Amino acid sequence: MGSSSLAINVERSTAGARHASPDEVAVEEPLEIRLGYGTAEGRTARSLSITMRTPGQDAELAAGFLVGESIVHGPDDILSIEPCGLPAPDSGNVNTIRVELADHVAFDEARLLRHFYTTSSCGVCGKASLDAIRNASIEPVDPCLPLFSERVLLTMPDKLRAAQKTFDTTGGLHAAAAFTPDGDVYVVHEDVGRHNALDKVIGRLLLDGRLEAGAFGVMVSGRASFELVQKALSAGMPLLAAVSAPSSLAIRLADEFNMTLVGFLRGDSFNIYTAGGRLKP
Amino acid sequence: MGSSSLAINVERSTAGARHASPDEVAVEEPLEIRLGYGTAEGRTARSLSITMRTPGQDAELAAGFLVGESIVHGPDDILSIEPCGLPAPDSGNVNTIRVELADHVAFDEARLLRHFYTTSSCGVCGKASLDAIRNASIEPVDPCLPLFSERVLLTMPDKLRAAQKTFDTTGGLHAAAAFTPDGDVYVVHEDVGRHNALDKVIGRLLLDGRLEAGAFGVMVSGRASFELVQKALSAGMPLLAAVSAPSSLAIRLADEFNMTLVGFLRGDSFNIYTAGGRLKP
Repeated sequence: MGSSSLAINVERSTAGARHASPDEVAVEEPLEIRLGYGTAEGRTARSLSITMRTPGQDAELAAGFLVGESIVHGPDDILSIEPCGLPAPDSGNVNTIRVELADHVAFDEARLLRHFYTTSSCGVCGKASLDAIRNASIEPVDPCLPLFSERVLLTMPDKLRAAQKTFDTTGGLHAAAAFTPDGDVYVVHEDVGRHNALDKVIGRLLLDGRLEAGAFGVMVSGRASFELVQKALSAGMPLLAAVSAPSSLAIRLADEFNMTLVGFLRGDSFNIYTAGGRLKP
Repeated sequence: MGSSSLAINVERSTAGARHASPDEVAVEEPLEIRLGYGTAEGRTARSLSITMRTPGQDAELAAGFLVGESIVHGPDDILSIEPCGLPAPDSGNVNTIRVELADHVAFDEARLLRHFYTTSSCGVCGKASLDAIRNASIEPVDPCLPLFSERVLLTMPDKLRAAQKTFDTTGGLHAAAAFTPDGDVYVVHEDVGRHNALDKVIGRLLLDGRLEAGAFGVMVSGRASFELVQKALSAGMPLLAAVSAPSSLAIRLADEFNMTLVGFLRGDSFNIYTAGGRLKP
């Protein structure tokens, strides 16, 4: 089991004077996700992705990544998730994880080779990116799901920060938290990569059988990009709140799929970019 | 020519009261980089990557990306960089750019298909990631290059912030700046993606014929990851300074290649993680 932080020595320069000081930094190492799929008549394995991540919760990361790619939708879609290979000689971490899909999961290998953001209609553009999401059979958020309270939203940054164990020691990690409409935090995960932190949260929900549409909103420590909105939508989340700013395409995607997108959630205020009707006082 | 920010309307909630307010957000759109290569006897074209980026400086982004992949090393390696295709119907931006490599550039298509972070020796690990950099023929930083002054370093955050035009209006962009050992800022670029901001800076240096080893250090607005250190090394930069924390693997890579890595550069202080001998008072 890898550690998420590493003790180092650093030279600190303050007002022109240098002194040596012990410190901790966030661990970053590559993880390869391998996918096994097929039926009893024949199974295939292939390398799906390599991502730089903070070790720990690798199973969650792999499961969440597969949800975001619309490859799996429930815990029964996965037969097993196991580390494979020898520990890396330098860190002792096992940096390959193998996911076996259940026989009934139709995995389209050719889809992996197609570019996600292109369509034949207009080449590469924001519209094509949205088309790709529609084609991945991601559904718009149901307008009749439970409302989230604004009062609850305002408590989330403190809750997220309180749960960020490694950030406190390293200052170097993104975080994501799933929370209910009533403000109960179900899970918080950290990672050097903002996408990975969200993947880990979504993967934990999947593995726990808790990936019901509308059950959880998500809070992220950084900015809200197109890809984060897409991942949250693929997990059936009706709300994404970010500490910082959203991008133009994140807003467009959230708007089209009726997801509530909140940004600059700090202190006693926040911005509502889309689907504000899902918030109650 | 695309704009880097977009005017929108937002609902702002402050202390429980909502009011409508005009705002601006950072633009995010996909960019496809296509590569043409070969000789007079036969040329080939292929799609190299698709990245979400803030429009503007697409030529710089493409050129810098190719430097980071160790595909080009000087301005003569590129015959032309031109937008291609029709403007996207929604934004009016042309979101495909085509780079034609000079005949003498040996482009190994198979290398693109190999995973960057794996070797046969240990599968996927930090060591393999470092091996991949060595195999890309990136050189360690020459210890005899000009020193950077600590006084100059301390002025960089203000200079970076002053040049971040879009960040001021949107709060949503990363930035990177190239500066000389004497503290002259040569170029600053912004992007929704931190890697893209650095690619744009490196690409501008390449296109201007200014990619000499040791001529510039670089400052980035966020954290220092493995990939940012690798990109700066591939551009011959002896120093990378970040506003926030580095990762474990960023430190390892900088240390092995004798690059000066500075983090938490704020106010009158900073941390020196590697190669502190390159800094003078």
